[in-house]
Order: sequence, then structure tokens, then C-alpha cells
Amino acid sequence: MSEHEPLVDDLFEPVEDQTALRVGVLISGSGTNLQALIDSCADGSVEAEVAVAISNKPDAFGLERARRAGVDAVYIDRAAYTTFAAYNHAIIDVMHSHKVDLVVMAGYMRLLGNEVLEAYPQRVINLHPALLPAFVGASAIHDAFDHGVKVTGVTVHFANERFDEGPIIAQEPVIVDDEDTVETLEAKIHEVEHRLLPMVVQLFVEGRLFVEGRKVRVLPEL
Amino acid sequence: MSEHEPLVDDLFEPVEDQTALRVGVLISGSGTNLQALIDSCADGSVEAEVAVAISNKPDAFGLERARRAGVDAVYIDRAAYTTFAAYNHAIIDVMHSHKVDLVVMAGYMRLLGNEVLEAYPQRVINLHPALLPAFVGASAIHDAFDHGVKVTGVTVHFANERFDEGPIIAQEPVIVDDEDTVETLEAKIHEVEHRLLPMVVQLFVEGRLFVEGRKVRVLPEL
Repeated sequence: MSEHEPLVDDLFEPVEDQTALRVGVLISGSGTNLQALIDSCADGSVEAEVAVAISNKPDAFGLERARRAGVDAVYIDRAAYTTFAAYNHAIIDVMHSHKVDLVVMAGYMRLLGNEVLEAYPQRVINLHPALLPAFVGASAIHDAFDHGVKVTGVTVHFANERFDEGPIIAQEPVIVDDEDTVETLEAKIHEVEHRLLPMVVQLFVEGRLFVEGRKVRVLPEL
Repeated sequence: MSEHEPLVDDLFEPVEDQTALRVGVLISGSGTNLQALIDSCADGSVEAEVAVAISNKPDAFGLERARRAGVDAVYIDRAAYTTFAAYNHAIIDVMHSHKVDLVVMAGYMRLLGNEVLEAYPQRVINLHPALLPAFVGASAIHDAFDHGVKVTGVTVHFANERFDEGPIIAQEPVIVDDEDTVETLEAKIHEVEHRLLPMVVQLFVEGRLFVEGRKVRVLPEL
């Protein structure tokens, strides 16, 4: 391990008497991935705590999911801020006030400002419903379906300043069958997302993710 | 089947007394996919015949593989033709003189001219060592490896006038492990190629590939 720099070395040490790693989740919609993360924290498969859910949409059902789980739910209105930077600083303020260690973008349909990435260097994870670098952008499942691919999938990656572009932590393929509609394909992809995202958060908690250039290596379990 | 137009309806009917479908293979290198196709035709898993191998490189080992299998091996020198169109017409002439029904690009490292695509409409198949539309171009395996993807794969598709872009017939994922080097990844991808390409040629022989816009559907076996 000598040449590797653990990502969470000074942030989180897995000792018994310490507070669990605190996750801030950014959402825009129904929040099924937020729910998967809340459930995984509750059943102990992810040794972390969802500290806050932030939505850029006031009516995102994910906010209600958070409230029901006793997690703070915050709507931040982009229109209330004159600049994109100010909006992103508002996100940072909420993350800081909730002592967030790790930011997870789980169906957050906006670009995240550099301000947040700089406040949480290599501590922002994005979930994308395609095998990046294929099908970047907000309609990845539809785009892949319309392109006629036979294999698509799910990507979890560290966010960087370019949309859907940072180092890839985990990917899992999803086969597109001739019988699939875009709806059945969405269901298959969401099922993988709900498994892959909590798995990656747990790897982060365990300090097992190492970034070398564009490559993310997963250290073996201790 | 009423709304579908079979691709090979008037070209090949699978009746006993008819000549096997004849495949012309374009190569540039060692020809391991050509070999896989020759072997599959020999063992009967592909009910076709490799009629000719054409290379744009004089020293491509695939030419030697063809000769050893009793298949005509033809080198066509791009530099001998003043225009790209004339070069592509030379390819067509060789394909026609060998009564080729289906053109397979198997590691052919040049763009194919529209002339060939027009001479063999929806009868040109390309093999690509990545999950298109990711990693188009001539260094797909290296590019995917350097990008740090966790899943890549193999694509077989109908060629169209845009490089690596036509309707996708088949894809198969290949997992990139942390231990993989670009060499071990290449070996894994080639193994899939050698299986996927003959499988697609056999589906073509059986008349089971139907193109609807960008989507290729595989009809069930009779």
C-alpha cells in the first residue's frame, strides 16, 4: 500500500467509538436509489448514515422518502440564487451543516458546480444508468435503447468537472433483450443501480478505493 | 413476419441442393477471426464457406491462414489506385469474382468505401473490440483500458457509411479486472470475438436477422 494514498485516511477511521461516515445525497426525482442507500445503512450492509437529502425539485418524492426515514430533506431552489456558484455554495452549506463526509449524486439531473467538487475532493460519487463513456447525459437509458445496443449497464464513478466523465469505480452490464421495451430496460437498470451504489459506498467506507490517474482500484478486504 | 423484410430472402434459401452462402473476409493483420470463421465453416457450426480473404497489408498473416485452408488470399494495394473509390472497386471486383454473398470485416483497419456498402447493401458485417458506441476507431481495446472502464466487450454490427456506427447485431460484455493488463484484456476480448462473429454469420445464413431502423432483431429458430 506504500505508493497508494487512501481516499478517506484522515476522514474516517473504522473504529468502534467513532461516528459513522455521513452521506449527503443529491436527488431530483423519485429517489429510489436514495431509498436503497437508506435501507442498506439501516440493515448494516453499508456502515454509513444518510445525513441529508437535497433536491433541486420541490416535489421530488425522494424528499418524502428521506423524511419518512428520519433523514433531513432539503429543497434548494436554483432560481433563488443569482449565480450558479451561489446555488452550489448553498448546497455546500447544507452539506457542511450536516457534517457530510461523502456526496452521492443519485439521479441528480443537474451539473454539479466545481465549488462542490473542490469542497469534497474525490468525495463526490455519481451514478449513471449506462456504461460510460457511452450515453452521457440525462436520457441515457432512452438513448441506449434507441441506439439499439444489445448491452448497456450502470456506472458509478467519481464526479469531476466534466459531466459523466470522472474515474470509474464500478460498472455492471445489463443485457438488452429483443423483447425489452424502454420500460423493462429501465426496470433492469434500476435493479442493478440499487445494488451497485450501496456496494460502492461501502467500499468507500472501508477505505478500499484508490485512484491512480483514470483508474480506480479496489483493495482487497482486510 | 408480414412487416419484416428478410435480409437474405432472394439471395440465399436454405435448401439442400444449393451452394453454401459465400463469405468474403477483409483483414489487415494476423487473421485470428478469419481463422475462427474458417474453422466454424469446416466443423459445420457455420453453414457457409469462406470464399476469399482480402488484405490491405501484403504481410498480413491472415493471408497465409487463408492459403493453408485452401481459401483464395488476395492482397490489394491501396497505393496502386489513384482514388479511394478505385481501390474499393478493386475490392468489389474480387468479391464478385468469388461470388461473395456476405462481406465480413474482421480486423480490417481501414474505412470501407461506400462503393462496397452499395454493392452489398446490409450484407457487410463489421467486428469491433468494444461495446459500441463506446471506443470507436482503431485502438479500441487500448482506449477502453486507458479510460479505466470496468466493463468493455465486443460488437458485431452491419457496416454503414459512418465508421463503427451501423445497426448492432450482437454485443457481449467483457469484465475488466483490476489484475488485467492491456494484453490479458486483449486475450479476453479476442476469445469473445472468435465465438461471437461465427455465431452472427450463422444467424445471417439462417435468415434470422431483421433490421428495423437502428435495431436488429434476431428471429427465433424455425
